[in-house]
Amino acid sequence: MCKRVLQYHQVETPPPQPFFKSLKNTLNEILFADDPFRKIRKESKMSKKIELGLRHVFPILEWARGYNLEYLKSDVISGITIASLAIPQGISYAQLANLPPILGLYSSFVPPMVYAIMGSSRDLAVGTVAVASLLTAAMIGKEVNAVENPKLYLHLAFTATFFAGLMQTCLGLLRLGFLVEILSHAAIIGFMAGAATVVCLQQLKGLLGLSHFTHSTDVISVLRSIFSQSHMWRWESGLLGCCFLFFLLTTKYISKKRPKLFWISAMAPLVSVIFGSLFVYFLHAQFHGIQIIGELKKGINPPSITHLVFTSPYVTLALKTGIITGVIALAEGIAVGRSFAMYKNYNIDGNKEMIAFGMMNIMGSFSSCYLTTGPFSRSAVNFNAGCKTAVSNVVMAVAVAVTLLFLTPLFFYTPLVVLSSIIIAAMLGLVDYEAAMHLWRLDKFDFFVCLSAFLGVVFGTIEIGLILSVGISVLRLLLFVGRPKIYVMGNIQNTEIFRNIEQYPQATTLSGVIILHIDGPIYFANSSYLRDRIGRWIDEEEDKLRKSEENSLQYIILDLSAVGNIDTSGISMLEELNKLLGRRELKLVIVNPGAEAMKKLSKSKFIESIGKDWIHLTVAEAVSACDFMLHTAKPDSPEKISGGVPEFNNV
Amino acid sequence: MCKRVLQYHQVETPPPQPFFKSLKNTLNEILFADDPFRKIRKESKMSKKIELGLRHVFPILEWARGYNLEYLKSDVISGITIASLAIPQGISYAQLANLPPILGLYSSFVPPMVYAIMGSSRDLAVGTVAVASLLTAAMIGKEVNAVENPKLYLHLAFTATFFAGLMQTCLGLLRLGFLVEILSHAAIIGFMAGAATVVCLQQLKGLLGLSHFTHSTDVISVLRSIFSQSHMWRWESGLLGCCFLFFLLTTKYISKKRPKLFWISAMAPLVSVIFGSLFVYFLHAQFHGIQIIGELKKGINPPSITHLVFTSPYVTLALKTGIITGVIALAEGIAVGRSFAMYKNYNIDGNKEMIAFGMMNIMGSFSSCYLTTGPFSRSAVNFNAGCKTAVSNVVMAVAVAVTLLFLTPLFFYTPLVVLSSIIIAAMLGLVDYEAAMHLWRLDKFDFFVCLSAFLGVVFGTIEIGLILSVGISVLRLLLFVGRPKIYVMGNIQNTEIFRNIEQYPQATTLSGVIILHIDGPIYFANSSYLRDRIGRWIDEEEDKLRKSEENSLQYIILDLSAVGNIDTSGISMLEELNKLLGRRELKLVIVNPGAEAMKKLSKSKFIESIGKDWIHLTVAEAVSACDFMLHTAKPDSPEKISGGVPEFNNV
Repeated sequence: MCKRVLQYHQVETPPPQPFFKSLKNTLNEILFADDPFRKIRKESKMSKKIELGLRHVFPILEWARGYNLEYLKSDVISGITIASLAIPQGISYAQLANLPPILGLYSSFVPPMVYAIMGSSRDLAVGTVAVASLLTAAMIGKEVNAVENPKLYLHLAFTATFFAGLMQTCLGLLRLGFLVEILSHAAIIGFMAGAATVVCLQQLKGLLGLSHFTHSTDVISVLRSIFSQSHMWRWESGLLGCCFLFFLLTTKYISKKRPKLFWISAMAPLVSVIFGSLFVYFLHAQFHGIQIIGELKKGINPPSITHLVFTSPYVTLALKTGIITGVIALAEGIAVGRSFAMYKNYNIDGNKEMIAFGMMNIMGSFSSCYLTTGPFSRSAVNFNAGCKTAVSNVVMAVAVAVTLLFLTPLFFYTPLVVLSSIIIAAMLGLVDYEAAMHLWRLDKFDFFVCLSAFLGVVFGTIEIGLILSVGISVLRLLLFVGRPKIYVMGNIQNTEIFRNIEQYPQATTLSGVIILHIDGPIYFANSSYLRDRIGRWIDEEEDKLRKSEENSLQYIILDLSAVGNIDTSGISMLEELNKLLGRRELKLVIVNPGAEAMKKLSKSKFIESIGKDWIHLTVAEAVSACDFMLHTAKPDSPEKISGGVPEFNNV
Repeated sequence: MCKRVLQYHQVETPPPQPFFKSLKNTLNEILFADDPFRKIRKESKMSKKIELGLRHVFPILEWARGYNLEYLKSDVISGITIASLAIPQGISYAQLANLPPILGLYSSFVPPMVYAIMGSSRDLAVGTVAVASLLTAAMIGKEVNAVENPKLYLHLAFTATFFAGLMQTCLGLLRLGFLVEILSHAAIIGFMAGAATVVCLQQLKGLLGLSHFTHSTDVISVLRSIFSQSHMWRWESGLLGCCFLFFLLTTKYISKKRPKLFWISAMAPLVSVIFGSLFVYFLHAQFHGIQIIGELKKGINPPSITHLVFTSPYVTLALKTGIITGVIALAEGIAVGRSFAMYKNYNIDGNKEMIAFGMMNIMGSFSSCYLTTGPFSRSAVNFNAGCKTAVSNVVMAVAVAVTLLFLTPLFFYTPLVVLSSIIIAAMLGLVDYEAAMHLWRLDKFDFFVCLSAFLGVVFGTIEIGLILSVGISVLRLLLFVGRPKIYVMGNIQNTEIFRNIEQYPQATTLSGVIILHIDGPIYFANSSYLRDRIGRWIDEEEDKLRKSEENSLQYIILDLSAVGNIDTSGISMLEELNKLLGRRELKLVIVNPGAEAMKKLSKSKFIESIGKDWIHLTVAEAVSACDFMLHTAKPDSPEKISGGVPEFNNV
């Protein structure tokens, strides 16, 4: 048992705060936790403030001044490297979104320029992504057929991009970027793996040279669609695809083994496109079942601002598509920006990044681009190629512009099957089963979230997977609050430390006293549970004591150290508990309520009703006080001391 | 500063548990927190087990054995008292639900009988309630007009009752009763006040003798409807209503002042009905603008099981109505049962009560009753009249049956305006502005929830109020997890205790060390926030130190005592934080991770990467270790000690 504590300390109530001040503090904490205007606020001169503000909004002003030739060299090299990846990938993903292939090139021209001005990541390479492309195709395609009504479909894609950008900008401006955090890491792993599986399956269309295909994305529909037309399979196309896939995967493997050879896998798609095109050109393979891209229009992005569709019934479809694809794109882009910033030790303000992404998509939607973000693969290549600043994005944009102006005819003979191989190779990297295993080992619930996202995407639709994983993640948060852990504490021998007896089996409990620790806030959602659970602990303890014929239970010490907050239902519960215990001739003792809890407990009559002497600063002091009462004057009923419980008799 | 701690203690990892065992424990904790089968489980003999099981399901078996004449006397008195309240209230509420008045009597016959067998509360009096009645009228009335299509409307009301009962039974059987807790106390106060306001406004129709009235329930529509037909107002009706209202409120006031005279207010509605009927009968007031009930059918409940509507399009309407009214009814009934059980010191199992409510409504829907629960007013009268067991419900049911068989003709001349007065008098008690003021004083957020429920109901619809208040309550839970408090800890002088320096302003901080306490779990929803916020604390501390030219910051002590759980995103955040701090030449020290957190931290590589020596059991020990390092060998970089951080350099 612990030794007597000589000095008792008082639990204090923090000084009261005026309502509006505390409201302001709370809102500040919710929206400006990272204190983004810290530097600006500290500056006293107005002109300096404006300058810092401009630099805050346009990071280019920050880094452009220190820019030098050394940087330029690095940026040009990495810019060209990512352009060589961006061109074939762009065409492939546009194909995946059922959009004209040229849109993939357009989307690698305007958005990177905007990002270079407004973005704060130095390593992010802007471009379209497979998952958002597929999602666009699946969502818009459900209501408008891309083949029968290509113009409307195209315009809806622009409109969805516009809405996505608008939403991203708004989230950033309102500093609501934390809403994107609702997509947990586990959910993203499952979701990405599912989406990659679905995207790969979709590519079987290109690989097998099929021309009709289902619009559904789930495994069952896709497999049924493939096997129902097995007589239409083109072996030439399949063989060619497998060869390129093998080539791409080999280069990936090499680059993974030797990170210095990253450029091998970065160049592989372009090499595949060139070889594929040459192959078709010389062997006239287009007449033997190999589908080709065909003609691409020359010239840079035509304006599309007049094509945006704001009339019902399509505007809601575009809005919905925009919001969902926009969130997915944000989640990927922000995560990519953050992780590279971590490596290079600089800061990324998520909300500011959202504004940059948003502006880039709004501008994109005005100039024939569809949804772009910062894809992981392209940014990794950028990073490995040694980029220094966002200038690499500008270089890529220029390279793409040159392609658009002069080189598009070269893609005439590019076989679609090569594009499919490029997509499959990129997607296989997204199935991160090791991460899933890691989740299983560390946290079963996270694995469950991941699995449900995966299964939802694979067997349902991409949206179902998304909703499932978000729903289950949120359920977990609610469950944490709804069912907080309560554990019994024991004394670690020869100390005044009290800890969970399950975690520290050597900790000893005291007869006559039970110490319960509540591990979470006391809210309406858990107050009934806590009351029941505490009752059960007491019942069990009394049973045990009755069997061993020890001292009967007299004191219930409730350690509130970990109770971050309490609401009025929680206070009622404590009052109720105090009365219940009083009637069972048990004395409730409270330990270490935090600032919030203490404020509310003293405003209510609770402190008076249990007696000010029965609120202690540490468990050791509370135990010592109980111990003292137990051994000196054995009280016939603890109410006599508190003066609080008999109140109830008057009710 | 605190004195040197001589002995260091180890943080322990609890022994691993097999997956299925821990899953079972978790589910047990979620669903069987109150351990309802404790007694049954402890019994070894099978026959005894069955007996206990039966008694568990049918509490009547429990108390019937000890029943005696003394009890019967009390129960008969209270039963007759509540019957005298139930009859006029029943008719009034049926009127409110746009149902034939006789249904109010039917509903006070069968359901109380069922409850007497299955319910575990001794004080609850079963009957219909105003809010659920109005909700039924509003929801079904939106699609089916009660005047034009009374038969379908009636059948839908039965079906909704059936679905409500089914849902209640299922919730109870699946032990999901905690879902009802989503309606917080604050939400219920606001919701009830709003509903009472709306119900009172609806009564203006009866009071002013109007025959046409809006179907909307919001203040604006109702007032517009009333004032647009001011030429139709009947002053006779209004005057009579005001007189009765005055009488009822006076008796209420008397009973409130002198609780012993509770029977005055309990009898007042019946007295009003009698006097009102006599008044009409003798003065022939029905020809002077006073509307009367008219003929009521003699005889007890006809069966209605064949009237249930399970065909579309109406089945979804009935289902929706049933679920919403069922939840509202449950929330009231369970709260009433619980609070009286508290007074009399016996236990109520919420889930068991739900089954009882559910069965009573299912049976009710088969026998021409609509939704019943345990209304507060009637139960309070029952309690005050000295009821001992659920037999008082049986007595009430018998009294109602007698009325149904023989006395219905007496209600022919009962004026509707009296019913309106009865409803208004009952409703005014529900506007608990004192409770709302109490919320404002204790917890602003709860007040906000209450207010939004009130405004939602009054200016929108009852459903909007419900959804608003639940939504905001849930948002609060999410916000708690999403934005946990972090505070700086200081040492309370001459002790080894560390506490929040805002709560204990006398606590002293140490130069070179910052101690941060995280007050909540570390989950995906807050890990970015925590990382940013910790960064901000460190920035601020470094600024402060720079100004005062004290020791530079070297150690960040993170107190995880209140971190109830951590998920994989949280672990990644800690790993990231450790790397970030390492690069800033700061050493991360962890204090007292709980069982769950410790389990996951040791499974991940985190413990290794910060070094096992840098995880301490108490803040005092951590501080002492840092202090020792600071004063003996001033380390040029703390990495040397930990051996953890340099790993990053190889990445």
